[in-house]
Amino acid sequence: MSTIRYSPLLTDLYELTMLAGYFEKDMHRKEAVFDLFFRTNPFHGAYAVFAGLQTALDHLAGLRFSDADLDYLGSLGLFRKNFLDYLRDFAFRGRVIAPPEGSAVFAGEPLLTIEGELAEAQFVETALLNIINFQTLVATKAARIQQAAGSGQVVEFGLRRAHGPDGGLHGARAACIGGARHTSNVWAGQVFDIPVQGTHAHSWVMSFDDELSAFRAYADCFPDNCILLVDTYDTLESGLPNAITVAEELRARGHELRGIRLDSGDLAYLSRAARSLLDEAGFPAVKIVASSDLDETLIASIRSEGGCIDIYGVGTKLATAGGPGGGALGGVYKLVRFDGRPRLKVTSDLTKATLPDRKRLLRVVDGNGQYLMDVLCRQQENPAAGDPVFDPLNPARFKEIPAAAELREIRRTVMDRGVQLTETESLERMADRCAEQLLRLPQGTLRLANPHTYKVAVTAGLRDMRDSLAQKHLGDRGEISH
Amino acid sequence: MSTIRYSPLLTDLYELTMLAGYFEKDMHRKEAVFDLFFRTNPFHGAYAVFAGLQTALDHLAGLRFSDADLDYLGSLGLFRKNFLDYLRDFAFRGRVIAPPEGSAVFAGEPLLTIEGELAEAQFVETALLNIINFQTLVATKAARIQQAAGSGQVVEFGLRRAHGPDGGLHGARAACIGGARHTSNVWAGQVFDIPVQGTHAHSWVMSFDDELSAFRAYADCFPDNCILLVDTYDTLESGLPNAITVAEELRARGHELRGIRLDSGDLAYLSRAARSLLDEAGFPAVKIVASSDLDETLIASIRSEGGCIDIYGVGTKLATAGGPGGGALGGVYKLVRFDGRPRLKVTSDLTKATLPDRKRLLRVVDGNGQYLMDVLCRQQENPAAGDPVFDPLNPARFKEIPAAAELREIRRTVMDRGVQLTETESLERMADRCAEQLLRLPQGTLRLANPHTYKVAVTAGLRDMRDSLAQKHLGDRGEISH
Repeated sequence: MSTIRYSPLLTDLYELTMLAGYFEKDMHRKEAVFDLFFRTNPFHGAYAVFAGLQTALDHLAGLRFSDADLDYLGSLGLFRKNFLDYLRDFAFRGRVIAPPEGSAVFAGEPLLTIEGELAEAQFVETALLNIINFQTLVATKAARIQQAAGSGQVVEFGLRRAHGPDGGLHGARAACIGGARHTSNVWAGQVFDIPVQGTHAHSWVMSFDDELSAFRAYADCFPDNCILLVDTYDTLESGLPNAITVAEELRARGHELRGIRLDSGDLAYLSRAARSLLDEAGFPAVKIVASSDLDETLIASIRSEGGCIDIYGVGTKLATAGGPGGGALGGVYKLVRFDGRPRLKVTSDLTKATLPDRKRLLRVVDGNGQYLMDVLCRQQENPAAGDPVFDPLNPARFKEIPAAAELREIRRTVMDRGVQLTETESLERMADRCAEQLLRLPQGTLRLANPHTYKVAVTAGLRDMRDSLAQKHLGDRGEISH
Repeated sequence: MSTIRYSPLLTDLYELTMLAGYFEKDMHRKEAVFDLFFRTNPFHGAYAVFAGLQTALDHLAGLRFSDADLDYLGSLGLFRKNFLDYLRDFAFRGRVIAPPEGSAVFAGEPLLTIEGELAEAQFVETALLNIINFQTLVATKAARIQQAAGSGQVVEFGLRRAHGPDGGLHGARAACIGGARHTSNVWAGQVFDIPVQGTHAHSWVMSFDDELSAFRAYADCFPDNCILLVDTYDTLESGLPNAITVAEELRARGHELRGIRLDSGDLAYLSRAARSLLDEAGFPAVKIVASSDLDETLIASIRSEGGCIDIYGVGTKLATAGGPGGGALGGVYKLVRFDGRPRLKVTSDLTKATLPDRKRLLRVVDGNGQYLMDVLCRQQENPAAGDPVFDPLNPARFKEIPAAAELREIRRTVMDRGVQLTETESLERMADRCAEQLLRLPQGTLRLANPHTYKVAVTAGLRDMRDSLAQKHLGDRGEISH
């Protein structure tokens, strides 16, 4: 798997001005721990699918400033020479703790934890947020779409509307992890080994004198891989009859038409009508592919109306992760420990406060392998079945960890001293993990609208540490409100 | 200005299967003309800002298949050897007609016209749509935000939420063209020569024992470029008083505090309060920077409430072009001429029909330089003041081109035989063009909500040609509905 290299200047300027400040104050080598997390699940849903880790690790491992980079930074007139000399030897030599890609994750959970010298751990903030926010968002959208499609196949079709070439490339990567295991994007096929699919456009049909000639020519070129787009003139009056004629001609020559594609109109109605026409003509195995501004809601509605679609080509809404609660994932990167002490971003509003210090993230699993809740605790804690755990934003609400439940570590150290410890997984493996984990969630968690909230609880130990730190900061200015 | 190289495999698979088909049918060298256009202005607005052309031209000029690319395509089992041999010598040697970047453009107008052999003109569809759709969308969003900000400065802050690294890089480029002439993105600063800005994060404050120490340390490192983030603990009770203390200390040493930044809370209220406190303390020149999920609507509302913000840092909503009617631009690429004849995508719904053949795009300008409407005509036509022109979707509605109006060609040939004819412009030049053109639009066209529709009309010649082609196709299946 080849990868794309990004510049070390893939960063907000303030990371560099802060670095220069820490360097000048001789704080840059002190130990720091940052958590990367998001506060709200995307798409008004109840879960997210973690993606982008390998892209992020590749970026961290390759982080070096070239002479041209240092010349550019020097030209800004902001940085002293000794700081630029320091950057010349700069590399990321820290530790990264994360779940594997394709894991189900939830609002409030630390996805990545970065430990290292303050300089390196702070500097990588922007790049990590950029990579993880985008890919996690698209993987989550893909999972929602695949859930809606049931046993139907989802093909990512969105390159032409994606946010630039690399948005299309890594969007296809993330979509694959979430469940859209095929793509129209040839570059993504090459780089990430995703199976590619494609047929022809309306312009193919318009380049011939009539639709039947166009279909015959395409079938002639791709007799065993022929999917015909039937809506250039009139789907049921012209496209389908011509496609059936070509299917008969192909069969006479020992080939089978693979499919027809609908790209406009009432897809529920047209797909039922197309299925009937194809079945009656003796072609029950011809697949029906549909595309046309699809998303999870539209797919669910087409299926509930008895639509007969085998393959969903999903473009814009998948590649740009559009729709309510979409478009961007609001991941943030917060300092939780510095120079030997836990740190807290204090605010009188607990929903914006951070959970300080190093933490473990555990999944509570019942005897059938079903996920019951996630629990966050302090690094040295070992919560067990029967222990009370609390809603972090409303600590009056508590539950017990059910008896006989197993607690599994969700995250592991994936990079240490700047070296990746884990093997690079295939996207297929990640997509399998995603599919498996979604099956283990409480059913209502997967609902497209008004889903059941999956519980992410904190132990008494973590809650008390957070509250005492907050009290210390706010002590002279007012009460901490729960 | 260095540029980023994208793979020639930046394409949907169907472009390649069609190419293989055209090659096999010996149609690939026949003359073809395609138009790239969008059907609806983004953000429920009345205009768009054209961007992405130079990125697109760089891609076209560099389009070559490497051995590795051809090996990958061979591995798909879809293509014959003589076609892969043909691709080995493939390059884009066609013509591109386009407006300069930063131009105001409108739904229904051909932005790019691509003329060449069918193979090359068809093949570049996906890449051109990807590049132009994204950058035009972001440039338009930036223009709306800059319009809302009035004389305030807009800084693009969105890298952490952009769709991947390159989405951030070229998003900053497009944002600059639309009016956000500064960015936090250091890579964009280096590649596109956009001025970079940045201060410090909450984590800087949290790395010190208290806020005042953090502010003093930052001022010490950047005495002449010091903007302090004042909302880590409490903006008015803690951040502002500490910032004023540091401003006084800086002044005593011969420096001036440059600004303070608000990143949460009621920005209209807090900015007024901050302005008063700073003015009363003798610091009327200290700038107020604000960020916090801003967009054009929020900025307009803050200004209408008397907010005192000098610099708007706009992140997520700009970099991802979010909000109603945003997220993606639905540009399409349609065959309008092939093998010596105009072509039409026919449908009984005129809003989806194309305008066939080569066309000119003219802007009707009055004696004061104000734009009155745009007119599309056939290549050989020369419409003039007094001529009737028609709404292409409702040809019963017509107007006259006003007497004494001047008709200006909006587009020019920017690439011929695969060679760029125009000089590469600076982003500043494009941003100036955008600002100037927006001033010349009818006032209501710029309104954020329910804007005035800018007229894009067709000549009688173009309308009649389109209608007669449509009638020929639909003749035996029904009436063309206007």
